Amino acid sequence: MAPDRVRIGLLGRGTVGRAFAELVEARAGAVEAATGRRPELAGVLTRGEGDFAEILAGSDLVVELIGGTEPARDYVLRALRAGKPVVTANKQLLAQHGDELFEAAREAGVQLRFEAAVAGVIPIVRVIQESFGVTEIDKVFGIVNGTTNFILSEMTSTGAAYEDVLGRAQELGYAEADPSDDVNGADAAAKMAILARLAFHTPVTLDEVAYEGIEAIQPDDIAYAKEFGLSLKLLGVAERRDSGISVRVFPCFLYGGHPLAPVEGPFNAVMVEAPAITEVTMSGPGAGGMETASAVLGDVVSILAGEAPVHGTREVLPVVSDVSSSFYLHLEVADQPGVLARIAQLLGEREISVKSVVQRGIGDDARLVMVVHECLESRFAAALEGIGELDELRSPPRAIRVIEEEFV
Amino acid sequence: MAPDRVRIGLLGRGTVGRAFAELVEARAGAVEAATGRRPELAGVLTRGEGDFAEILAGSDLVVELIGGTEPARDYVLRALRAGKPVVTANKQLLAQHGDELFEAAREAGVQLRFEAAVAGVIPIVRVIQESFGVTEIDKVFGIVNGTTNFILSEMTSTGAAYEDVLGRAQELGYAEADPSDDVNGADAAAKMAILARLAFHTPVTLDEVAYEGIEAIQPDDIAYAKEFGLSLKLLGVAERRDSGISVRVFPCFLYGGHPLAPVEGPFNAVMVEAPAITEVTMSGPGAGGMETASAVLGDVVSILAGEAPVHGTREVLPVVSDVSSSFYLHLEVADQPGVLARIAQLLGEREISVKSVVQRGIGDDARLVMVVHECLESRFAAALEGIGELDELRSPPRAIRVIEEEFV
Repeated sequence: MAPDRVRIGLLGRGTVGRAFAELVEARAGAVEAATGRRPELAGVLTRGEGDFAEILAGSDLVVELIGGTEPARDYVLRALRAGKPVVTANKQLLAQHGDELFEAAREAGVQLRFEAAVAGVIPIVRVIQESFGVTEIDKVFGIVNGTTNFILSEMTSTGAAYEDVLGRAQELGYAEADPSDDVNGADAAAKMAILARLAFHTPVTLDEVAYEGIEAIQPDDIAYAKEFGLSLKLLGVAERRDSGISVRVFPCFLYGGHPLAPVEGPFNAVMVEAPAITEVTMSGPGAGGMETASAVLGDVVSILAGEAPVHGTREVLPVVSDVSSSFYLHLEVADQPGVLARIAQLLGEREISVKSVVQRGIGDDARLVMVVHECLESRFAAALEGIGELDELRSPPRAIRVIEEEFV
Repeated sequence: MAPDRVRIGLLGRGTVGRAFAELVEARAGAVEAATGRRPELAGVLTRGEGDFAEILAGSDLVVELIGGTEPARDYVLRALRAGKPVVTANKQLLAQHGDELFEAAREAGVQLRFEAAVAGVIPIVRVIQESFGVTEIDKVFGIVNGTTNFILSEMTSTGAAYEDVLGRAQELGYAEADPSDDVNGADAAAKMAILARLAFHTPVTLDEVAYEGIEAIQPDDIAYAKEFGLSLKLLGVAERRDSGISVRVFPCFLYGGHPLAPVEGPFNAVMVEAPAITEVTMSGPGAGGMETASAVLGDVVSILAGEAPVHGTREVLPVVSDVSSSFYLHLEVADQPGVLARIAQLLGEREISVKSVVQRGIGDDARLVMVVHECLESRFAAALEGIGELDELRSPPRAIRVIEEEFV
């Protein structure tokens, strides 16, 4: 093996496996800049092709993306026992056989990483294990299944029944043809077993996680609960309770101000509570193929980087000054014919278009409040200078930037 | 040096320094369990006491919490050049002298960590450097100053003027006696210089960050903008723009659905956007002494743990089953005198108290929807069984858990 290369044995070529193979090629240079080693695929094992023993022998590191418990368990154990670090995205494998796998990694003195197994693009595994590794955590909880969060969001906004929304989720690709493990809470339960193990340094197996799904939720319950200011989520909760821990998954109402209440659609969000940190909330889309592959590559890089943090200067980018922004603009002007037209003209000359405007009379004057679409800031400044010189202006114009994206 | 101990040289004994010293003592056992090495303070340097050279000689690792640029810069450089890893919470030091410090760390082959310098308890430095270390990031932006977010939240909810709210923030300890660097955007600018450097692998100095503060914000602008569905935040933005990057701090309006719009009070929140991950949002309280100390300790642990991730099984906790929950309860009952009383009695017998209730007639029947306060789930189940046996019940009772905390 050349010391400046790392040979990756890839197990699986489904959606995530293909995305990972592409990502390794696309980001090989960045990985090399960060770690000093260039990654390359040493072999790919699929259901029909490849020999595991051969791939293992030719790899420095194994990425397991075949899913399910067997033969994934066997392969991961053999890789660890051969002294090869392993990255996996396989939540069922970890939730059901975590003890055995972590023990094998410890004995061999190699890393087993699995950021992609839980909570989509949210790096919750790293944050719990590393940032809060010696923090006494009270509670880890959140929305760890994007399919059910999409369904509950749709039921809430449309009032439609569970079955109808499930069908729509399947059409949009947010739910699988057989959605059982998502909608009955089993998928979330596996993830919570993993998070509970990390947060509380305690082995938690899947059968210790009590879970309920969302199949029985009635749209009218969602509607009635709205009157109390409540919105419904499928929550996974792992927490200290008296002398032990409780790990559960259940549909749950939240009051409006709760940090998880605004999490809508196929998103995940996880909160960590501890006296020393109060709380941290992390949210992001539930993982698609590219997002999962990206989390897997992050784990590969962590293994390669070892102790050395990434301070490498790669392609240095210049700092630019003139950028585009949208603006809020507040004007007080004499309420005379033609003033608005003149202002519109000054904006139009700089190709600045108005998105929203409100005009109100205030005695002999008028207040104009508007939002203009994104434009180069230098242009907006020039238009504003012209507006500032208008005789009809009653006070200096006031401008504040606006992020134009509307998420709702 | 005993190989199972790590001697920490602590520079500074202000609020954070004292909290860190306490935390090291409180969590020494947990650090040892996680890393195999027990931390102990080898010496503390304050303005009046201690000799840096002596403390350095007796330490394996240096924690810099004196703040400011000198003598912090000198001490950190000397520690790094002596081959000692350094953890610092000093954003000004990194924003102004980052090049020199990172170069010294690289040359000496030791770690320089600084999670506590940016965004309070949110582990954004680790996430950008490690989870997204080889991800092509487009944009890092957010609310990185808790003082100004508190002031803007208060101005929005009360309509009060900037000066009045600032006074209140000072009384509550959310703003310092001299709040200049917070309210004029300079503090946020230093943090964004650090985040931009990490995200874009490009040296960014403080003087390349254009910043504006919130001193000139008028409460009526906040009120007018509400009509467009906008809320105001002080944003730090570091992003790719054409061939370069732009790093800025400015007050900015956001539409209601934006992930940062619900972030109120003395909180921080940071979003990372990249094609491979779409987006991740992280939020938490702006740091107090304990929160900052906790982030510093996390960095210390990372240095000690080196390559080995924390899989250690420490005190193993049992999984408990019966826990307390609050519940939403939906009942359809015959609209007869005494039914509500009987239901209330069944709940009362189990010491379950009702938080909210709505009753509506539906023909000859009535719909009762209520939220009950937290109680042991076994008790609620028993009460529910009793209610289910009532002759007056027109459909099976439906119960869904509720998180009772109201954050607003």
